Amino acid sequence: MSILVVGSVALDTVETPNGKVVDSLGGSATYFSVAASFFPSTIRFVGAVGDDFPKEHIDFLKSRGVDLDGLDQIRGGKTFRWGGSYIDDLNSAQTHFTELNVFGHFTPKLPDSYRDTPYVFLANINPELQLEVLKQVRRSKLVVCDTMNLWIDISKPALMETLRQVDILIINDGEAKQLTQESNLIKAGRQILTYGPSRVVIKKGEHGSLSLTESDFFALPAYPLVSVFDPTGAGDSFAGGFMGHLASTDQPESEEAIRQAIGYGTVVASFNVEDFSLNRQRNLTTFEIEERYEQLRKMVDF
Amino acid sequence: MSILVVGSVALDTVETPNGKVVDSLGGSATYFSVAASFFPSTIRFVGAVGDDFPKEHIDFLKSRGVDLDGLDQIRGGKTFRWGGSYIDDLNSAQTHFTELNVFGHFTPKLPDSYRDTPYVFLANINPELQLEVLKQVRRSKLVVCDTMNLWIDISKPALMETLRQVDILIINDGEAKQLTQESNLIKAGRQILTYGPSRVVIKKGEHGSLSLTESDFFALPAYPLVSVFDPTGAGDSFAGGFMGHLASTDQPESEEAIRQAIGYGTVVASFNVEDFSLNRQRNLTTFEIEERYEQLRKMVDF
Repeated sequence: MSILVVGSVALDTVETPNGKVVDSLGGSATYFSVAASFFPSTIRFVGAVGDDFPKEHIDFLKSRGVDLDGLDQIRGGKTFRWGGSYIDDLNSAQTHFTELNVFGHFTPKLPDSYRDTPYVFLANINPELQLEVLKQVRRSKLVVCDTMNLWIDISKPALMETLRQVDILIINDGEAKQLTQESNLIKAGRQILTYGPSRVVIKKGEHGSLSLTESDFFALPAYPLVSVFDPTGAGDSFAGGFMGHLASTDQPESEEAIRQAIGYGTVVASFNVEDFSLNRQRNLTTFEIEERYEQLRKMVDF
Repeated sequence: MSILVVGSVALDTVETPNGKVVDSLGGSATYFSVAASFFPSTIRFVGAVGDDFPKEHIDFLKSRGVDLDGLDQIRGGKTFRWGGSYIDDLNSAQTHFTELNVFGHFTPKLPDSYRDTPYVFLANINPELQLEVLKQVRRSKLVVCDTMNLWIDISKPALMETLRQVDILIINDGEAKQLTQESNLIKAGRQILTYGPSRVVIKKGEHGSLSLTESDFFALPAYPLVSVFDPTGAGDSFAGGFMGHLASTDQPESEEAIRQAIGYGTVVASFNVEDFSLNRQRNLTTFEIEERYEQLRKMVDF
């Protein structure tokens, strides 16, 4: 099954206690696509870069089988850049700078061939743009979205409209509390279900994730890591593994498939944080993913 | 199988956002015993109270089948009192006062009939006293201990000596980090295994718990609660459910039995926090425990 993703492509400058990288490949749609590419689905990519975007990154995405017909390379434009650090706390980034560049004027335009994609992921971008995408898709089977604190702060009405139109919201714990003004995470999750999505998946970093519907509750611990090299992109990688597996089963309504998808999301995210940027994914194999997935299953079995 | 517990008995004054109780039944050995009493084992209790300790509390413990031959009621003495609140943060108590009273001069003295108890739990008391107990026990099958930040601060040499002599340490996440000076919890757990215990169980409050040995890793989420009424005694109740089940299986070396025991500890702790003091346990049934245990199993199954 095909997956459509719309989100950011970035050149990230990141500092962690383990070192620093400058202008490394990043962006929500990028992390998502590469994660999803480890599963047997086609990834259709919508985003924008400038003509400063290195060809090697294009080649890398193509080598992962990502369909880049929807990637707009804007002549004379400059690629979105983000700079941040995780010096004191690996769970939360301190943003040093954000240069929107080509993303300042980005309006997603889906190639006609993309409009019937059954699985749609609205990565973390302005909810106004997420709504733009929803206007252009037809006959989707499952729409999943992500968001962030910034949009809850400055674009809440559009975000609430997006939520009315999606099936699943994937969000982190702090954002779930911020969105609902609820300090109890279970209450926050239940509140979110009243906004539109039939399921909410709440990511808790090193403490794993929760999935709530009206009738089901699933909790999965994180894969235990003795060191986190660079947490950038963990959430997008989680979403990519989740959607990649779910689309490959083509059973978006199955609680069992969803739980397995959360397991795969957890595993792919755990690999992502083992190195800067998408470096770990460059030599990651599906065998390693399956092996760690089995470890995770055994870890929680009782 | 019998379980020996040595720890505190207290009259607690506790304030939470849900209200306040004055001089209510508390103490690490008390919470532990009542939790363990829901499993088919005999609980042998060692502790001290003053002659101000209400007879109704003695009657309650007896009604739970707890053997109180080792409870020293000191004539003219005053029962240990603790006062605290959880106003801003339900995960950590703010201590308002501690009156040691009879616990200021307490030296555990095991009745001779207690000395061969196969399962021993050293609840949270001064590690000097935990060592006193260890001198008096014979032929134990499993020794488990708890501790707290205070003893890590002021009595670390005795605590380290206790750790050399126990099989399992049950500890919360903040204390594990404090004890090892490791900010990564997996590293902290592995470090603790070098101190003596062959297993460490790390409690993470609303995020569940971890269990580590040299060769096994188990992670279990908490039972999801939309409101925590009073967290006092959750850790001791966890330990009681854990030991209660483990002693009833009499398979302290079995990873399967240990994982199930952590499940039961989680469940009993989740009931404990639903009301002040031990009030929820007064009408709790083994049917409710089994029902929630099954829910917990289904919650993590994938």
